[in-house]
Amino acid sequence: MTPPVEEDEVLERIRGMLENGIEALGLRDDAAVVDLPAGGPLVASVDSVVEGVHFELAFCSAPDVGWKALMGALSDLAAMGATPLAALAALCVPGGSGDGELALGVMAGVAEASAAAGCPVVGGDVSASAALTVAVTVLGTVSDGGPPPVGRCGALPGDEVLLTGPCGGSAAALRALRAGTGPGQAYRRPLARLREGRIARLSGAHAMMDVSDGLALDLHRLADASGAGFRLDEVPVAPGATLDEALGGGEDYELLIALNGSDATTLIDAFEREGLRPPARVGTVVSDSEVRLFGDGPLQRRGWQHRLG
Amino acid sequence: MTPPVEEDEVLERIRGMLENGIEALGLRDDAAVVDLPAGGPLVASVDSVVEGVHFELAFCSAPDVGWKALMGALSDLAAMGATPLAALAALCVPGGSGDGELALGVMAGVAEASAAAGCPVVGGDVSASAALTVAVTVLGTVSDGGPPPVGRCGALPGDEVLLTGPCGGSAAALRALRAGTGPGQAYRRPLARLREGRIARLSGAHAMMDVSDGLALDLHRLADASGAGFRLDEVPVAPGATLDEALGGGEDYELLIALNGSDATTLIDAFEREGLRPPARVGTVVSDSEVRLFGDGPLQRRGWQHRLG
Repeated sequence: MTPPVEEDEVLERIRGMLENGIEALGLRDDAAVVDLPAGGPLVASVDSVVEGVHFELAFCSAPDVGWKALMGALSDLAAMGATPLAALAALCVPGGSGDGELALGVMAGVAEASAAAGCPVVGGDVSASAALTVAVTVLGTVSDGGPPPVGRCGALPGDEVLLTGPCGGSAAALRALRAGTGPGQAYRRPLARLREGRIARLSGAHAMMDVSDGLALDLHRLADASGAGFRLDEVPVAPGATLDEALGGGEDYELLIALNGSDATTLIDAFEREGLRPPARVGTVVSDSEVRLFGDGPLQRRGWQHRLG
Repeated sequence: MTPPVEEDEVLERIRGMLENGIEALGLRDDAAVVDLPAGGPLVASVDSVVEGVHFELAFCSAPDVGWKALMGALSDLAAMGATPLAALAALCVPGGSGDGELALGVMAGVAEASAAAGCPVVGGDVSASAALTVAVTVLGTVSDGGPPPVGRCGALPGDEVLLTGPCGGSAAALRALRAGTGPGQAYRRPLARLREGRIARLSGAHAMMDVSDGLALDLHRLADASGAGFRLDEVPVAPGATLDEALGGGEDYELLIALNGSDATTLIDAFEREGLRPPARVGTVVSDSEVRLFGDGPLQRRGWQHRLG
């Protein structure tokens, strides 16, 4: 039997891992010190992933969990049009997981996502727990002289609704993983649409959010926040996914963007110049908040919500 | 049987709670927007508390858990000499806890601590989980034109070591709670030493940290980080606590402060002017990093570490 590993030792190994390849971790002190670019407010968000709720270790590795945790949090910055500044990761790992291996595996995935997104991990915390849980806080800025961060609540009647990519990919990938028929890349290694979000803000987006809880539920939420309704004309479905998965599967990190028609054209041109996938025109914002249509019928309010009762 | 409560509904009730009494919660969007005071870097830290690891609900209420989670995180800002700017709380609550009640109870305690410390909660996340887990990220600033944040690594030979208050109070309070002989205030409602930490930074502290993992272990860590040794002459023991509890009990949020003798006098005067408890002079930093003395014998390296094996 291996003797239990103490927190200081695991933290020391995590520091070693993060210093190779990405920026140094501020764990040596009680708190991290982050230099701020001048101008603009801070944008901050926290997101948790929990074993048995958001993932099963049967279908993704410890590094996948770390990657998904950081990318999921970064998607919230993307949805505000913010640029990542720093992340903090709180890990809770079950005892008996052998030599701190699970914590180190998760942090390896956090480090990979951190490098991929250009968001240094500046702080963290490791604790024991019954279920593997990773809570990631991300900090971002909008210090480019452009418009302020974009919330959910500014959509205006007549706005076009764009979507940065097809949906259902994550749910379809998980289905393939369960059936043993695919590698599950879209489920295990999602990408936050950070460049797309920033361009959308600079193009004059009125409202924006990611569709991580499912396109249908999140479009309803955007309309709720804006006091508006919508007509959804088209749902881009990811390869291998069903329409149901595209509407309600969740864990897709595409962005919904509401903006006026001429700004939509500006945005589409900017995406093309930057070599990004062309966004789809999926619908329109309408003034009557009771109108929530998909084609000719009502769009069901469904998606991924935690049951807390 | 009550029907399960959905996340949106619980979040709406949490927003209502936080808007009464403290500042509005930024949960309506994917991320919160925080205005920054000019000057100085950001100080950031994350801290988790887990049921069965850091607390038992038999000995503290849901609001106590929320209070402890936020105060524990704020203590890390105190230990850097930073002033709180904002907090984000990620809650993972077990299913079957009835009507989101547990999440709301925890957030009530977070809100109380937030008001007591003047640190608005700007963001959060609620998820299902096997064990109640609260991860709190705190952001602070040092934009007062004074010295930069104070780490652990700057203690110099000859520095005096001060402690802001007696230790062991939390462990003794938990012991009394278990025995049914006391209300457990020091365990259930600890206070972060934010004013003390800020004054210590402005007084020229070389190194500082809180003693949340136990005075003995944390003094060793401060010496490790500074490449120095120490002589611990005196251990202020909280009323009702034993010397063992004072050295290794943990969850005390007093601050260890290393600074030169004349700055120590400045600090003590400043504490008196501000009506703060006089700090105790507990020891001295020495150059030989092998010297780790308590009185005439070695100080054991013990305290509270998570066993992750």
